[in-house]
Amino acid sequence: MNQVVDFINVNRDRYIDELKQYLAIPSVSALPQHAPDVRRAAEWTAESLRKAGIQHVELIETPGNPMVYGEWLGAPGKPTILFYGHYDVQPVDPVDQWTSPPFEATVRDGEIYARGSADDKGQVFMHIKAVEACMAAGGALPLNIKFLIEGEEEVGSAHLDDFVRSHKDKLAADVVVISDSPMFDRGIPSICYGLRGLAYFQIDVRGTKTDLHSGSFGGAVANPGFVLAQILAQMKDRSGRIKIPGFYDAVRELSEAERAEWRKLPFNETKYRKDLGAPRLFGETGYSTLERVWARPTFEVNGLLAGFTGEGAKTVLPATSMAKVSMRLVPDQDPDKIAELFEAYLKKVAPKTVEVKLTRMHGGKPWMTEFDNKYVRAAGRAIELGFGKPPVFNREGGSIPVVSTFQTELGLPSVLFGVGLPDENAHAPDERLDLGNFHNGIIASAYLYDEISKL
Amino acid sequence: MNQVVDFINVNRDRYIDELKQYLAIPSVSALPQHAPDVRRAAEWTAESLRKAGIQHVELIETPGNPMVYGEWLGAPGKPTILFYGHYDVQPVDPVDQWTSPPFEATVRDGEIYARGSADDKGQVFMHIKAVEACMAAGGALPLNIKFLIEGEEEVGSAHLDDFVRSHKDKLAADVVVISDSPMFDRGIPSICYGLRGLAYFQIDVRGTKTDLHSGSFGGAVANPGFVLAQILAQMKDRSGRIKIPGFYDAVRELSEAERAEWRKLPFNETKYRKDLGAPRLFGETGYSTLERVWARPTFEVNGLLAGFTGEGAKTVLPATSMAKVSMRLVPDQDPDKIAELFEAYLKKVAPKTVEVKLTRMHGGKPWMTEFDNKYVRAAGRAIELGFGKPPVFNREGGSIPVVSTFQTELGLPSVLFGVGLPDENAHAPDERLDLGNFHNGIIASAYLYDEISKL
Repeated sequence: MNQVVDFINVNRDRYIDELKQYLAIPSVSALPQHAPDVRRAAEWTAESLRKAGIQHVELIETPGNPMVYGEWLGAPGKPTILFYGHYDVQPVDPVDQWTSPPFEATVRDGEIYARGSADDKGQVFMHIKAVEACMAAGGALPLNIKFLIEGEEEVGSAHLDDFVRSHKDKLAADVVVISDSPMFDRGIPSICYGLRGLAYFQIDVRGTKTDLHSGSFGGAVANPGFVLAQILAQMKDRSGRIKIPGFYDAVRELSEAERAEWRKLPFNETKYRKDLGAPRLFGETGYSTLERVWARPTFEVNGLLAGFTGEGAKTVLPATSMAKVSMRLVPDQDPDKIAELFEAYLKKVAPKTVEVKLTRMHGGKPWMTEFDNKYVRAAGRAIELGFGKPPVFNREGGSIPVVSTFQTELGLPSVLFGVGLPDENAHAPDERLDLGNFHNGIIASAYLYDEISKL
Repeated sequence: MNQVVDFINVNRDRYIDELKQYLAIPSVSALPQHAPDVRRAAEWTAESLRKAGIQHVELIETPGNPMVYGEWLGAPGKPTILFYGHYDVQPVDPVDQWTSPPFEATVRDGEIYARGSADDKGQVFMHIKAVEACMAAGGALPLNIKFLIEGEEEVGSAHLDDFVRSHKDKLAADVVVISDSPMFDRGIPSICYGLRGLAYFQIDVRGTKTDLHSGSFGGAVANPGFVLAQILAQMKDRSGRIKIPGFYDAVRELSEAERAEWRKLPFNETKYRKDLGAPRLFGETGYSTLERVWARPTFEVNGLLAGFTGEGAKTVLPATSMAKVSMRLVPDQDPDKIAELFEAYLKKVAPKTVEVKLTRMHGGKPWMTEFDNKYVRAAGRAIELGFGKPPVFNREGGSIPVVSTFQTELGLPSVLFGVGLPDENAHAPDERLDLGNFHNGIIASAYLYDEISKL
């Protein structure tokens, strides 16, 4: 392993230059106009796997964006890792809030700024470079590895479940490794053992055929902007509790043991609040901030649009209004069941003065594992070797629905081996990745292969 | 007057061609990029006054858009009319909902479709053509007339009050005539004796420094989109009553006599609802639709914006949210007082978890007059001569704040002589003006000069 680590240290700058090329491809899966860029990112990913020494690499077409699949199976008798990641990225708006252009990766103060740096190209690339280093230093990997890198993670992984289901033999492995989550905090590497699920919707309200003059008609008809506000306001009470009947029925309550563990974590609520720039923190009564984010479900407004939103004033009654809303789910909530409950409640609270349409956008199941399984312990040792300290064990507020798919369809445990930081603005302007963590992450990834090979 | 009417009938088609040119100028006062177009519309208005035979025409600069002023004072001893109108227009978005381009006036089924056709270029032009016809037929007008046509009506007439106050001699007259309101219904000409006022605001909510990932942070901080919905929902109760404390204190209640008059008006609620395409009508409990629109104040959402509003899904917690809201006011509510009450209530209902900023956009006082004054009666006769039937007397839900200014500053009564139709989409896509009403309106305007000259 010494030679591997030496190789990684020597090539540090080259890795950054290559990563910049990867980050320059605007592979925004949510926007149809970026479809060619998405494909270009898939090809770039495949090519970098080939260069790293992966024997067999292919782009596999789906009804949506292609999967990048690669395998190196030169260690018969040894365990097989299935590495999962994604090469697509979130949209960049509001683009004027970026300090440097989102697709011109820029290094400032030891961090690389670009859309996709933390989520997830940077972390995917980390593993590719760990493979390259093992190959360069020893001519082989200590175990077998399969890469599955998709292009639709940011739009709900619409074709991944089908793909996994219909390629069970191809994807057969011993453990799934995923690097698509942040570590607990700067200088505090972590292993994540729980994720929230997701249920995302669009609500469309129509009041009248066309926009109307608010003088001539104001008072005579329901206002879709106001009705939407009324509807949304009924989704949560003042204590932050979601009012959808049945919403909490399947929620697994936190154990006292888990709460006690989390209280020991070095979490500074004041610093957290200040970093976010929030006047006050706010969440469900009766839970700490970490509990709210890791173990409690949410109802959030992701977008609102109605009427006139330009500069100045327009005295219009909007004909329509729109909200994007989503719920983060926790074990054992089911996104389909939650969608039903939401739809029923929406129907109940929506007034008959408007037409309300609900569109289900996408959903993903929450996930949680025992953190004393042998793969998690191996990952813990690898992180200690790469980062110089043992990891803490945490849950994550985000969603990686595929973790649940791998468990259900392939019967595989997952190790969430993330090196992002919680303040790296995944999904927001000025997304970035700490280059120290990127570098240590390459070393830790190489150690992870070594540690798992010994199991 | 026969010669005048003959002239108007002969020139019918030419008027429409000229009006098309006027409507082709995108004089949108709310959008800074249209400033040159606004000026061009002012110059076009001035030139058409000159061509009509108005002796003295000038553009008068203000800190905003220029006023077009014109006067013909060739009838000493006769009354003087001050005609007020505006050459600016509303924005055109959503532009994709227009059947034909908003600045390419198109005639379909006897109606001319274009932004500004009804509000207010078409009605301004009607008076200019009436002057032209009187001049052509008799070489003179039967009375004195002053034109004051401004370019900021759609953005709150910011500089009009000052202008009127500092030009009292220039604007001295006997009566103000304004054609900027609809008639009661197709085939039912009307004289409007009351207008609602306006108080328009923008609410900006900030939760955090930047947009956040709804997974990593959802549950820990207040969501500005949701908070905005909560705030707005507290502005009205389920019966449609506004909850701002003190809001109704100055509202003049409808008299039983007035309510009885309005019940006699030929108003078909089912047709009205169907024309608007609303599933149901909705408004304040205890009042009829006409009462709600003409004599009751409103709170309306004019615009909403937060987070991700594009196609697809983005799991973002928006950093900010924005609402444009406005209230229509009735006698004797005062927009400044209402703004204070609103600001105090907003402060009370806004949670401390976010920053809330209120911007006062513009306001205008409500207005109401006795409808048995001699000018209103003269206008009634003119309408009967132009449209072949006597007008009904109604109030209007819209606002023409200048009416109140003319009353206060110049001590002048106003005659609201509108020939638009209530379904002509002023402020909405497919704004239009009925060309029959436009034509009859020119004739009625000429009769109006004649009738007032006899007083």
